[in-house]
Amino acid sequence: MDGHIRSARIHEYKKPLKLDNISRPVISRDEEVLVKVGACGLCHSDLHLISGEWKDIIPINLPKTPGHEIAGWVEEVGKSVPENIMKPGDLVAVFGGWGCGWCIYCKSGEEQLCAFAKWPGLSSSDGGFSEYVLIPSYRFLVNVPNSVARPEDLAPLTDAGLTPYRAIKKVRSMLGPGRNIGILGIGGLGSYGVQYAKILTGGSKVFAMDRSDNKLELASQCGADYLVNLRSSDNLVDGIRTETGGKMLDVIIDCVGTDKTFHDSISILAKGGSIVIVGLFGTAAKIPIAMTVLNEYNIFGSLWGNYNELREVIELLNEGKIKNNITKFKLDDVNEVIGFLKDGQITGRGVLIP
Amino acid sequence: MDGHIRSARIHEYKKPLKLDNISRPVISRDEEVLVKVGACGLCHSDLHLISGEWKDIIPINLPKTPGHEIAGWVEEVGKSVPENIMKPGDLVAVFGGWGCGWCIYCKSGEEQLCAFAKWPGLSSSDGGFSEYVLIPSYRFLVNVPNSVARPEDLAPLTDAGLTPYRAIKKVRSMLGPGRNIGILGIGGLGSYGVQYAKILTGGSKVFAMDRSDNKLELASQCGADYLVNLRSSDNLVDGIRTETGGKMLDVIIDCVGTDKTFHDSISILAKGGSIVIVGLFGTAAKIPIAMTVLNEYNIFGSLWGNYNELREVIELLNEGKIKNNITKFKLDDVNEVIGFLKDGQITGRGVLIP
Amino acid sequence: MDGHIRSARIHEYKKPLKLDNISRPVISRDEEVLVKVGACGLCHSDLHLISGEWKDIIPINLPKTPGHEIAGWVEEVGKSVPENIMKPGDLVAVFGGWGCGWCIYCKSGEEQLCAFAKWPGLSSSDGGFSEYVLIPSYRFLVNVPNSVARPEDLAPLTDAGLTPYRAIKKVRSMLGPGRNIGILGIGGLGSYGVQYAKILTGGSKVFAMDRSDNKLELASQCGADYLVNLRSSDNLVDGIRTETGGKMLDVIIDCVGTDKTFHDSISILAKGGSIVIVGLFGTAAKIPIAMTVLNEYNIFGSLWGNYNELREVIELLNEGKIKNNITKFKLDDVNEVIGFLKDGQITGRGVLIP
Amino acid sequence: MDGHIRSARIHEYKKPLKLDNISRPVISRDEEVLVKVGACGLCHSDLHLISGEWKDIIPINLPKTPGHEIAGWVEEVGKSVPENIMKPGDLVAVFGGWGCGWCIYCKSGEEQLCAFAKWPGLSSSDGGFSEYVLIPSYRFLVNVPNSVARPEDLAPLTDAGLTPYRAIKKVRSMLGPGRNIGILGIGGLGSYGVQYAKILTGGSKVFAMDRSDNKLELASQCGADYLVNLRSSDNLVDGIRTETGGKMLDVIIDCVGTDKTFHDSISILAKGGSIVIVGLFGTAAKIPIAMTVLNEYNIFGSLWGNYNELREVIELLNEGKIKNNITKFKLDDVNEVIGFLKDGQITGRGVLIP
Repeated sequence: MDGHIRSARIHEYKKPLKLDNISRPVISRDEEVLVKVGACGLCHSDLHLISGEWKDIIPINLPKTPGHEIAGWVEEVGKSVPENIMKPGDLVAVFGGWGCGWCIYCKSGEEQLCAFAKWPGLSSSDGGFSEYVLIPSYRFLVNVPNSVARPEDLAPLTDAGLTPYRAIKKVRSMLGPGRNIGILGIGGLGSYGVQYAKILTGGSKVFAMDRSDNKLELASQCGADYLVNLRSSDNLVDGIRTETGGKMLDVIIDCVGTDKTFHDSISILAKGGSIVIVGLFGTAAKIPIAMTVLNEYNIFGSLWGNYNELREVIELLNEGKIKNNITKFKLDDVNEVIGFLKDGQITGRGVLIP
Repeated sequence: MDGHIRSARIHEYKKPLKLDNISRPVISRDEEVLVKVGACGLCHSDLHLISGEWKDIIPINLPKTPGHEIAGWVEEVGKSVPENIMKPGDLVAVFGGWGCGWCIYCKSGEEQLCAFAKWPGLSSSDGGFSEYVLIPSYRFLVNVPNSVARPEDLAPLTDAGLTPYRAIKKVRSMLGPGRNIGILGIGGLGSYGVQYAKILTGGSKVFAMDRSDNKLELASQCGADYLVNLRSSDNLVDGIRTETGGKMLDVIIDCVGTDKTFHDSISILAKGGSIVIVGLFGTAAKIPIAMTVLNEYNIFGSLWGNYNELREVIELLNEGKIKNNITKFKLDDVNEVIGFLKDGQITGRGVLIP
Repeated sequence: MDGHIRSARIHEYKKPLKLDNISRPVISRDEEVLVKVGACGLCHSDLHLISGEWKDIIPINLPKTPGHEIAGWVEEVGKSVPENIMKPGDLVAVFGGWGCGWCIYCKSGEEQLCAFAKWPGLSSSDGGFSEYVLIPSYRFLVNVPNSVARPEDLAPLTDAGLTPYRAIKKVRSMLGPGRNIGILGIGGLGSYGVQYAKILTGGSKVFAMDRSDNKLELASQCGADYLVNLRSSDNLVDGIRTETGGKMLDVIIDCVGTDKTFHDSISILAKGGSIVIVGLFGTAAKIPIAMTVLNEYNIFGSLWGNYNELREVIELLNEGKIKNNITKFKLDDVNEVIGFLKDGQITGRGVLIP
Repeated sequence: MDGHIRSARIHEYKKPLKLDNISRPVISRDEEVLVKVGACGLCHSDLHLISGEWKDIIPINLPKTPGHEIAGWVEEVGKSVPENIMKPGDLVAVFGGWGCGWCIYCKSGEEQLCAFAKWPGLSSSDGGFSEYVLIPSYRFLVNVPNSVARPEDLAPLTDAGLTPYRAIKKVRSMLGPGRNIGILGIGGLGSYGVQYAKILTGGSKVFAMDRSDNKLELASQCGADYLVNLRSSDNLVDGIRTETGGKMLDVIIDCVGTDKTFHDSISILAKGGSIVIVGLFGTAAKIPIAMTVLNEYNIFGSLWGNYNELREVIELLNEGKIKNNITKFKLDDVNEVIGFLKDGQITGRGVLIP
């Protein structure tokens, strides 16, 4: 290592990334950690960033290295990093919500909600489409000692595998024997969602809902008890009524987030039931006021996950209780892989290996 | 008492009620209680019922006695009513959600959510615009021993004074020192809401919001810390930002329930904040999906209240911690009073005294 | 059926029960239900009652029929029992906490905590060592329509299978991936406890603890991840530290309830951890004050379960998610079976079939 | 300021502190903040430390500066301290639980529970009996912009005013109209406890309990509804039964923590009630097992408070909702003041002003 590293960077919006040789980042603050990237997940958010769609809401200076689902190994540590906590060579996953550490959200452990949070690859900080990435504090790394996990298993857990976990934890207390939970949208998030639903909800029945039979087949492999194809569901409501013995669904995790999925969700929700929205595909959804009041519906937004929640999903991975569905690619092929993702040709999560 | 009682009954929709002499109801089941009505509140729901607007959603046989906010005295009890619990002469408030006592909602103490619940005056059961009313079980009565309360104080607590109490209890754990709660709509419910907000929310600041300065003046007398006139609030968002030091409102209790009030509420909600809808004036409201997810908003519907919650508001009344704002009328004048309510001429809650 | 039934009754304390022919109970209140007993569990509490040990705390008139773990079929119903809810021939389990239905505990769904509760066979009401038993209200029956369950499966769930379920629900929110729960005492309750721990605690590791290798073997069959023999555990603390990677146990369900088990529990409890006591074998236990404060320990007592919790364990049985470990006996042999229980010769739960 | 500061330091256990001139601490890590001490509370813990009683459990090198209740002004900041968050001149209170920032407790916002936490003046770090104190991170400071608060008001809030606040928050959800809370022990903590009980518990009645009429008089000024002298309470149980109408106390905050106070507390606890222990005067207390199970008692230990809780009590102070009861002394007189505290001659909290 001669002080230079390779990074795939945006130089101009809508153009292919360039594979640049740039200076290796240097630790300049006492809490910083330099991480050698082992794997970095590719997410639809990266497409939005690269295409320039988000240039107004996330103003960044180009060139910029994308990539926010990162795992790898500690390379160097600043002088304030306690040796008993973290040291060079440790396998680590990168928690992406780099909060200020001081505001009311950070101080309650919800750094991903910090108004000043930076995200690697989605802010002024460079991300993981690179051989190395500089992390502002060891407090944003989860180290995974003595693990059989590989970086490519850990990387997708930091976002795709974290978001549905938090969503289900929010409503876990409402679930248990005799209850029903639906996971709507079986993509990168939903296939984890089905697995968490089986583990966390105390014997509830798990309904997987999607418009694609292939994705429902994946849900079935993940343990879903019932499969519901929303494309052919003329009588969605009657079907759910029959399969639940009239109880309907107590909880729906909406991994899509459109007016259509919200409308479908409300129509099959039990009295006192809850919808947790994590998907961002739509702009607005309509709440029917009388039904919401008379049936005491609950609607929650849920964003990403916090650091301890990331610890927990990694724990599940280490114990063999969840499985990933990933495809590995070389960092050199990043532009080709971006094309695959655009065209819907990637099964599960695509992961780049530098 | 010669076995006949006077009741104001609907004989035909949209027509004035008739003051009929009918047979006094007779106890025929072991758990029943006959209550001598001391007072019965008049509610907008009664107007909907009388006008026939609800004849499809609440199909009833005419003639029918309206009135669901009832308080009075025990007159007679069935043989299964335990004497140590309730006996003739006891002052009682009538809990209106007459649940089946067996379903999952009733068995968790939420009888108002029971799918089979009957409501006095809003179902096949006759209500309180009458000298006497028959209650299916002593378990739907809250007795108020040794109280200085009068029936006219208790009656409005069974609905107008109960609904905002439940709404605030749902979000109480999110409130406390440094937090802000808004009560939107200072009518029959909202003036209680402001008082509960002061008592229950652990030192939170209470914002009262309405389009009428008179109602805001009432909110001020109830203890509101800040008054916000929504009619003149061109810069509602900036105003709230200034008064909360940038924090915005952690909770909003929407006693109106329209697309407009929902839109206003979302615009001034803090990250992680909650809207509780109890009002039923609108049909639908639009949720902005990205904001709901990114800011982790919570939206709750809240219906009426449960029996123990009614106990608690009566406790507050008994201890002098809340005050009513009522106007008393004679049952004989019921049609005139209905006209007053339609025309917005009643301040606070109108209460009929048989 | 000629109006007479056989019941095993206490005529004198410390003497064998007599198998009497008595009049069949007759419905005299509108909510009552006559149940034909299909099975009745035999519990250590019955031994205490029969021996007269409890004659001061539970004063009853003799003769008296014991038996509080009852399942069977509806024989007759009072006129207030709704036909759509319950009708003759229905398979039912009897919820044992016959609360007043009106106090603050009953009205929040916790009838087993009612100060006026009656228990079948443990109060003035006769129990299930009989061909028929009279239930004061259909609201104390859980009906199990279209079930493959047999009365002998349902009966033990009403106490032995219910108590550890409630205990674990109390602390469920503290458990999840990376957490550890211990079930201490693998008898009638503990073998259910291990199964619930696997289902309800979201991927926590389950430690079974007992002084008998046979019982630990049973726990293993029920799914326990680690077995700890407390008799040979000189270095209990070190052992738990090693197996949990230094984390210790987040929750311990103490099904024994002695000073010794409490002392053991505290010694292996994680910071912020919880002990739930359900066992009643001891009289007092010592809390170390400084450790309790500095480590923020939580200690909960937990009693029996509520009606909805009984519904939930029956749901688990119906779905094949839990299994019983029962031995069936004829009611005629009741005195012999009582002897077996005294001598510790019954594996799992003994159930009497009339 | 010539680079030297005055500090009162322990040179030898059981000896008076020496007022030394020592070098001013120098910022050597990027997150550090140098605070000019405005006030430092004097606590019984300081007496234990100075006397050497704790030399085994808190091994420290002498000389050492005690003092853990600190408030003052920012003097200098390290280069990682964000200017928009904190800058020289800001009035600050020092949060005392300097956690590692990485463990499961720190990451859930409970830094005071961190196994690696350092406490100023009670660990290897010097405390606030000094003109200046070095704080390891701005994340341990609560800044109080535009406040009318003085350092001597803020200092005692960081421990005496924080501990009962956390204790009450733990059980707040169990309290409300018609409920009863007792504060046992009206010393430094208890007088805050009574005030918080009035603010946080939603209209519950507040019972103050102590053995001294003077302290009960203070509780009365703080808003207690009932005063109970434990010295003369032969019939404590009957007295509480009468005053609560048979309900007993739902919550007791035990600021003493002895076997006697625990025994008293259990004897007057309502079914389902909770005891929160924060006092450390005793070594062990006896739990009656049957009562704990049958009445479903809850017992919680509670330690200090977290950072956001400190924010909240400061908010209450700023809004004038709580008042301190302090006596100011000069740092020069520290040994004399220590004598006063030993002899019980200090009313409320003694605060040293450098």
